[in-house]
Amino acid sequence: MDKNEKVNELARRRGFLWPAFELYGGAAGFFDYGPLGAPLKRRIEDIWRQFFVIQEGFAEIEAPTIGVEGIYQASGHLSGFSDPLTSCKECKEIYRADHLIKHIVEVPDALTNEEIYRTIQENEIGCPECGGELSTVYEFNLMFKTMIGPGNKMTGYLRPETAQGMFINFPRLLRHFRDSLPFAAVQIGKSYRNEISPRQGVIRLREFTQAEAEIFIDPRDKTHPRFAEIKEIKMKFYSQAAQETGTEEEMTFGEAVERGVVAHQMLAYYVARTYQFLLAVGVSPDKMRFRQHKADEMAHYAADCWDAEVFLDRLGWIEIVGVADRTDFDLKAHAATSKVNLSVFVHYDRPKKRQKIVVKPDFKALGPRFKGKAKAVAEALKALPPEKLQGDKITVLVDGESIEIEPSLVSCETVEEEVRGEEIIPHVIEPSFGIDRILYTVLDHSYYEDAVDGETRAVLRFKPAVAPIEVAVLPLMDREELIVPAKKILEELRIRGLRVDWDTSGSIGRRYRRNDEVGTPYEVTVDYETLELGTVTIRDRDSMQQVRVAIEEVADTLQSLLSGKVKFLEAGTLVVPAKEK
Amino acid sequence: MDKNEKVNELARRRGFLWPAFELYGGAAGFFDYGPLGAPLKRRIEDIWRQFFVIQEGFAEIEAPTIGVEGIYQASGHLSGFSDPLTSCKECKEIYRADHLIKHIVEVPDALTNEEIYRTIQENEIGCPECGGELSTVYEFNLMFKTMIGPGNKMTGYLRPETAQGMFINFPRLLRHFRDSLPFAAVQIGKSYRNEISPRQGVIRLREFTQAEAEIFIDPRDKTHPRFAEIKEIKMKFYSQAAQETGTEEEMTFGEAVERGVVAHQMLAYYVARTYQFLLAVGVSPDKMRFRQHKADEMAHYAADCWDAEVFLDRLGWIEIVGVADRTDFDLKAHAATSKVNLSVFVHYDRPKKRQKIVVKPDFKALGPRFKGKAKAVAEALKALPPEKLQGDKITVLVDGESIEIEPSLVSCETVEEEVRGEEIIPHVIEPSFGIDRILYTVLDHSYYEDAVDGETRAVLRFKPAVAPIEVAVLPLMDREELIVPAKKILEELRIRGLRVDWDTSGSIGRRYRRNDEVGTPYEVTVDYETLELGTVTIRDRDSMQQVRVAIEEVADTLQSLLSGKVKFLEAGTLVVPAKEK
Repeated sequence: MDKNEKVNELARRRGFLWPAFELYGGAAGFFDYGPLGAPLKRRIEDIWRQFFVIQEGFAEIEAPTIGVEGIYQASGHLSGFSDPLTSCKECKEIYRADHLIKHIVEVPDALTNEEIYRTIQENEIGCPECGGELSTVYEFNLMFKTMIGPGNKMTGYLRPETAQGMFINFPRLLRHFRDSLPFAAVQIGKSYRNEISPRQGVIRLREFTQAEAEIFIDPRDKTHPRFAEIKEIKMKFYSQAAQETGTEEEMTFGEAVERGVVAHQMLAYYVARTYQFLLAVGVSPDKMRFRQHKADEMAHYAADCWDAEVFLDRLGWIEIVGVADRTDFDLKAHAATSKVNLSVFVHYDRPKKRQKIVVKPDFKALGPRFKGKAKAVAEALKALPPEKLQGDKITVLVDGESIEIEPSLVSCETVEEEVRGEEIIPHVIEPSFGIDRILYTVLDHSYYEDAVDGETRAVLRFKPAVAPIEVAVLPLMDREELIVPAKKILEELRIRGLRVDWDTSGSIGRRYRRNDEVGTPYEVTVDYETLELGTVTIRDRDSMQQVRVAIEEVADTLQSLLSGKVKFLEAGTLVVPAKEK
Repeated sequence: MDKNEKVNELARRRGFLWPAFELYGGAAGFFDYGPLGAPLKRRIEDIWRQFFVIQEGFAEIEAPTIGVEGIYQASGHLSGFSDPLTSCKECKEIYRADHLIKHIVEVPDALTNEEIYRTIQENEIGCPECGGELSTVYEFNLMFKTMIGPGNKMTGYLRPETAQGMFINFPRLLRHFRDSLPFAAVQIGKSYRNEISPRQGVIRLREFTQAEAEIFIDPRDKTHPRFAEIKEIKMKFYSQAAQETGTEEEMTFGEAVERGVVAHQMLAYYVARTYQFLLAVGVSPDKMRFRQHKADEMAHYAADCWDAEVFLDRLGWIEIVGVADRTDFDLKAHAATSKVNLSVFVHYDRPKKRQKIVVKPDFKALGPRFKGKAKAVAEALKALPPEKLQGDKITVLVDGESIEIEPSLVSCETVEEEVRGEEIIPHVIEPSFGIDRILYTVLDHSYYEDAVDGETRAVLRFKPAVAPIEVAVLPLMDREELIVPAKKILEELRIRGLRVDWDTSGSIGRRYRRNDEVGTPYEVTVDYETLELGTVTIRDRDSMQQVRVAIEEVADTLQSLLSGKVKFLEAGTLVVPAKEK
């Protein structure tokens, strides 16, 4: 077994990840998070919330996963979120048409459906299953479709991303933030993508979890007030230029912005926060880089875009986060489709003075000439742009009637005007996280093996902040006199909110191994010294060392250890190492 | 405005609950949780997790929201989860057929579709909109349907409840818990119900959040090891008998089980935990009762079922939680449909001795008679149940051939056998929580008004544990010298993980009111004494009293106040009350 197989086998056997619906034959692209996977996922989400909701002050919202058609018309998913398919005319099997010509065309994405089909025909490509003739190439929309209510009157789609929930709530969010920029909203929740033939476990799912932030900013100022806090951080940047040479460049964020590697402070700040978050959940810095989208892969509207990529065993470099400056694309699209104004009036720091040409009709001359219509004619003249006042004749339209007026009846004057602000459409910075991929990365990067007494020990070296089990309480033997004090410790730890497991089955060595394998940072063992001296042992997963601690201090000590306030060897009296069996 | 309208108006205006998709005309039965609603929801879910995952040690899992057909065949949702509809032949409008005859028939649920239609015809009921003729009554399945993958090959349904995710994972869960009962798994997540015409805000949604636990127990023992911990708790029981008189009965859980009001300890324990949870999130004990299902509303398989009901303004008594003993119904149904054995081998405490009749064929006689077949005949005889050995002739079936044997060739012997255990199908106790309804109840029960200086003050008296904003930091004026120290406090509180808001807009009195209205328990105000003496004020939402605290102690003090470790008046020096404006 290679590491990829080992991690997957462990994830399945110990209840991190289970293929869904096994009882009914399963379905590709769906996974269950088991009793250890679900808490790992929740804890990763909670750390994300800590970073972006609590510390950045972004507003978390929760919109439905089912959406109505208008949303996806505006977002472009209805027309553009699709894959090209072809089916076998004989056996009816369905294929990604572009995948069938991968070995012939370098970038099949760039071809139209007609071009893909022509390539299939010219190269005499048949059905990979039965050799049968393939159909013309057609688009398959990747949104799951359903009907809302009875009578097939209203179409609904399962959202392909959480982002739209923030965009369509822009008017309410803006009011919530008292009409001023910047502000941001986030969602953590399910998204759906009806993949043709999903593979690679949780890397490509039909139902997955995203954490997305939409940060609405004033486009005239892309600095960030807290940039100083992150500018000294060093990281590997795999910029467009660096990709030419194939080597990432390590530099500080300050340098990256200064040199123009990253477009501006605002984007750099959130790339840095993303980096800090990934480190906090346990992604290895040695197997992580930030890659800039190349000019030809960046969306046409995007100003800049960086992906967090991680190296995974067997799968190679995989994108797990994208951080993009999406400019005003999304809000403009929704404003156009919904006919609702999605601009913000931004006040200038101080009012600006502006020269303005004012048209002054000669009321005395207009009155007698146009009588009852005189006022309407004057208004029409005032509304004309200055360039229309040039020439021999001025033409205005009043109630559908075209009226000509000689220039002498109109004069122009330049006045100075005070302008307090302007209507702008905010730009959007979007950090978008794939939670399932991040979770899998944490599994992959945490897994290691060492040898204990000549036997392989498999360990998930989770950070305590993500470990699904924080402490295991283990009575040395399955005997009443040890069970009772051990249960007391268990209850006390649970009341404090710790995630605690209880295990009495098998030798103590075997129980340590079982806990190492699922990443439990600390084990508390209740033994006969507990009964004599009132102390228990705490074992450290990584060093396998043990310290003895008084029973009444064990809860406090564990909390200090888990939060990193105390170093292990300072937590109690070191136990002279005995062999672990 | 009555209270219901006030709560809804507040919820909408302040960002708790927004009607979804407003930009695109909206859709009934879908709501957004806004910047204050989403954290309120998350915190309620987290307290649920604290109760049931951390403290009870239940395994949280996360299954997909899309499910395959087999699951809902087994669960009965495919055939039974539907409403009777009728459509107008003229205007095509669709109605709940049973609702149209509510004023004629007392329990329309009990009628068949044919009977409903006959009632419509006999009473000459026409379309409520246009008076047109109504169609025959047909069933509309309430599951949202979709197709998985291309080619319409695989039907998927959005889950109508989270419970099935636990049932279909029973084999893996059983293995996870080392093949022994009891154990439990939970899910918190979205469920879907394609309602005909949803109303009542978040009380009846098409997409909603459930928290469900499935507790798999040994049916032979329905006591609970921790029953003693809850047996002295008093609560209002609205039993089947009490419903006859219309008056709830207050008693302890111990009494309820002893008197047979609640079926057994196991159910009573989880009703008690449900009660404790609802109190913890802020449901008012005066507006809550537990109602037992009546014999005719209980599912045929259920042993007992209790609903937590709350009284809501305008809506009356509404169910928010159900706690049921579902017996072995669900596992049996899945075993039958999936053809997978879902029983558990339970070991007896000590092996049981059992009398067993053993059939002993006379090999000496059978050998010559049946030759090569003799062994097969002997095996067939041994497999016969004792009652088939009576009579003149014994008939066995060997390789499809019916063979008659005289009883003299067979003798019976009674032997004693040691039995170590037996195969059983676990029973399931299911507490099922409607999170959206609980959240709405918390809003409704927290809302109150008092008068300050002759003006109405609206307050959400949230428990600190659910408040979406725990602390607001308010510089007395929007001036640099106050902003700087206030920002420092803000940052420190956020680093500690507190949910903190920042507000500089408007008079201090207005800002207090704004925070009262969204239930912020404490406000920290930075004023000119802060600059002189290094102290800030902390204001208590409910009493509106203020204490002064040293700036370096403010974070610790707030954490102690929020966790209830310190009483407000002991937290600092009381400020002589000034009028709040």
